[in-house]
Amino acid sequence: MIFPREEADIGAVLALANKHGVPVTTRGRGTTLMGSAAPVHGGWVIDMLGLNQIAIKEEAGMAHVGAGAKVADIQRAAEAKGWFYPPDPSSREYCTIGGNIACNAGGMHGGKYGVTRDFVVALRGFLPTGEYVEWGTATKKFSAGFNMRDLWIGSEGMLGVVTGAVLKLIPQPAARWTLLTSFRDETRALQAALGLFRSRVQPAICEFLDRESVLCAERATKQTVFAGQAGRPVILLELAGSKPEVREQSKAVLAWAAANATAHRVARNRDEAEQLWAVRRKCSGAMFELGDAKLNEDIVIPMRSYVKFARFLVRLKRESGLHVPTFGHLADGNLHVNIMYHRADKAESRAAEKAVQLLMETVVSLGGAISGEHGIGLAKTPFLRLQHSPAQVRAMQAVKRALDPRGILNPGKMFEVFHVWKHEKLIVHLPWDHK
Amino acid sequence: MIFPREEADIGAVLALANKHGVPVTTRGRGTTLMGSAAPVHGGWVIDMLGLNQIAIKEEAGMAHVGAGAKVADIQRAAEAKGWFYPPDPSSREYCTIGGNIACNAGGMHGGKYGVTRDFVVALRGFLPTGEYVEWGTATKKFSAGFNMRDLWIGSEGMLGVVTGAVLKLIPQPAARWTLLTSFRDETRALQAALGLFRSRVQPAICEFLDRESVLCAERATKQTVFAGQAGRPVILLELAGSKPEVREQSKAVLAWAAANATAHRVARNRDEAEQLWAVRRKCSGAMFELGDAKLNEDIVIPMRSYVKFARFLVRLKRESGLHVPTFGHLADGNLHVNIMYHRADKAESRAAEKAVQLLMETVVSLGGAISGEHGIGLAKTPFLRLQHSPAQVRAMQAVKRALDPRGILNPGKMFEVFHVWKHEKLIVHLPWDHK
Repeated sequence: MIFPREEADIGAVLALANKHGVPVTTRGRGTTLMGSAAPVHGGWVIDMLGLNQIAIKEEAGMAHVGAGAKVADIQRAAEAKGWFYPPDPSSREYCTIGGNIACNAGGMHGGKYGVTRDFVVALRGFLPTGEYVEWGTATKKFSAGFNMRDLWIGSEGMLGVVTGAVLKLIPQPAARWTLLTSFRDETRALQAALGLFRSRVQPAICEFLDRESVLCAERATKQTVFAGQAGRPVILLELAGSKPEVREQSKAVLAWAAANATAHRVARNRDEAEQLWAVRRKCSGAMFELGDAKLNEDIVIPMRSYVKFARFLVRLKRESGLHVPTFGHLADGNLHVNIMYHRADKAESRAAEKAVQLLMETVVSLGGAISGEHGIGLAKTPFLRLQHSPAQVRAMQAVKRALDPRGILNPGKMFEVFHVWKHEKLIVHLPWDHK
Repeated sequence: MIFPREEADIGAVLALANKHGVPVTTRGRGTTLMGSAAPVHGGWVIDMLGLNQIAIKEEAGMAHVGAGAKVADIQRAAEAKGWFYPPDPSSREYCTIGGNIACNAGGMHGGKYGVTRDFVVALRGFLPTGEYVEWGTATKKFSAGFNMRDLWIGSEGMLGVVTGAVLKLIPQPAARWTLLTSFRDETRALQAALGLFRSRVQPAICEFLDRESVLCAERATKQTVFAGQAGRPVILLELAGSKPEVREQSKAVLAWAAANATAHRVARNRDEAEQLWAVRRKCSGAMFELGDAKLNEDIVIPMRSYVKFARFLVRLKRESGLHVPTFGHLADGNLHVNIMYHRADKAESRAAEKAVQLLMETVVSLGGAISGEHGIGLAKTPFLRLQHSPAQVRAMQAVKRALDPRGILNPGKMFEVFHVWKHEKLIVHLPWDHK
């Protein structure tokens, strides 16, 4: 484990590693769910937490940050100056911006505002040779040479080491408005959401919880999520913008809720809104009563396939015999499908393995993505070739060989199939595990 | 010249070209100012204009388009459904989306809304081998494998051939509000703009015209741009959004104008706004009274360097003895520096050549970009190595060799230095030339 204090140290480490063919894995807080930061081929691990500087440029609306800066710290620094950094993975109090760049992290705000990629204007760092590079300038436009910046984003530390970034910020919304809605069933909920989007309302957040997620939260908290609507799927909406804009849009959303939902409730203030959001946050941890192991699959479904996918989930639950509570971000189709099982139960483990395979095949056949914000790492390597044709994989591998000819950067990820089910599973509890 | 009617034809053409080592240049309308679509090494040219389908997906807020679709047609199709495609190069009535993707085109809306790259969610097309590939899905999140989509965007047809794209749309703003402001001099105008941005107002458009641009427009139209403010630099602002949002923001902008501008005038309706915009559009063509040749350099300056750059321009004009009217997009720092000279005048030509060199060196030393939206093509090849270090250029060239090992796609661009001043200049008038 190497703890650099200055960016230049990383260049020196890489030059040495490249010369001697030593694998190098870059690590932030390791909150990845995909095993992306695990040094499976041994070698050196560079811990980036020392490079955590944050500077907000007020007129440009940009943040200059080190790769080890915590995402929530960047958000708070921006907010203090009236600016807003929207990407908000649920691990934001732990994870680093470097890790977010490595897997192109998203979060609840993706539908309206975009993901990490949409907010990175420049990157700096090192090639595996130890040579320093800068991709892009601290400007919103750049069209000079190949776009290596965006090639590095989402490449999971396999093409270069990011040491710092310039992030675009947007003005902090002056007002937020939160609404909880419930629906008869999942299909009706998804159809209603599509109707809302068709009318060109763009909620800042549009979180869906299916019946199983709601039931988990209710059992865990011993409270109903929505009084009088026990066990019903819900959509939790938040509008954000200027006060008059939010006021105007909220009228349209209320009319939509009256026409489509079985019930709806407006949060009268930020405290009430916080209570509504608390439910959303609890449901993930509450799922562990359904099994001691969870496969949280961050698939993405195009809107045209929402209803088909809702029907598929019913079938998946029935055929696998497992609990598969599902929640996620409806405005961008990024659903978290949580396949729950008991580690010690061999039949359940086999059923979970089969269920993931069927899920991934279905997602791709519906025109979706096998990962929206977690990346491939180790855990999704068996599915990469469902998403990408042989020609596509060959092109990516050619890029990998071109930029890292000795293959020292984060080897074993993405292209090499890792058979997760053949490995002994460790039980660890990490600070960021949902309680 | 090859005129494919179906996307699959392009795969067949490429397979043949790759086998026999024939250069292939992809061409939309050829509106590029950089010579990016000129087949300098001979071979075949693929004309993409036949692939011009456009389909708007209402609930997803996306446009599915062929590479040959005209940008203005995409904008109109989106508008007809209440959606908005913001990237708006001034050639939008001619240029194709394929060309916009090739050079990552921008336009006036870049500061608030972003550029082409920010609106492409998926691309399809062919590798030089003729193999069909799809990069990304029709979803707003995608984190599965290397980001080849964004690597292709801005790669000027050198890594693959784009045949179609899925574009993200945003809701059409319900209201627009236009304001013309004038300033004592360029430095004061730029300082005032920075003050506006610092207060977190984000105009949809914020166009700056320096004194020379204003004088050109005034001489050409025989009208003053701003009555009572003859010959003063101006900033033309447009707010866009919901009606109440625009109303609220316009108050802040009026207060800013009262405090900073020598005068300001609000357009009372869309007709008056159109008259204001007409001036902006005319200034580019009007410049030809200052010379029969124009070097339109689309450089980008980070906001922290605005004032330094304004001082540099004064020096550039004085030392070169040339007219250098400058206008551009202040919200993203993308200024069009127009170096005017007479083709037949050898001294002026030499002065222009020197001025471009000095401009590019200064832009890079100020932390800016040598191109914001035109790309490198042929014309900017002498400056690529000012922007990028040897290690950066080697990395890009390695990617080029990896994805196009036989070097058939648009050869001669970006990395090979093209000595534009050693070539005879042709005088041609194209339909999209400013009158």
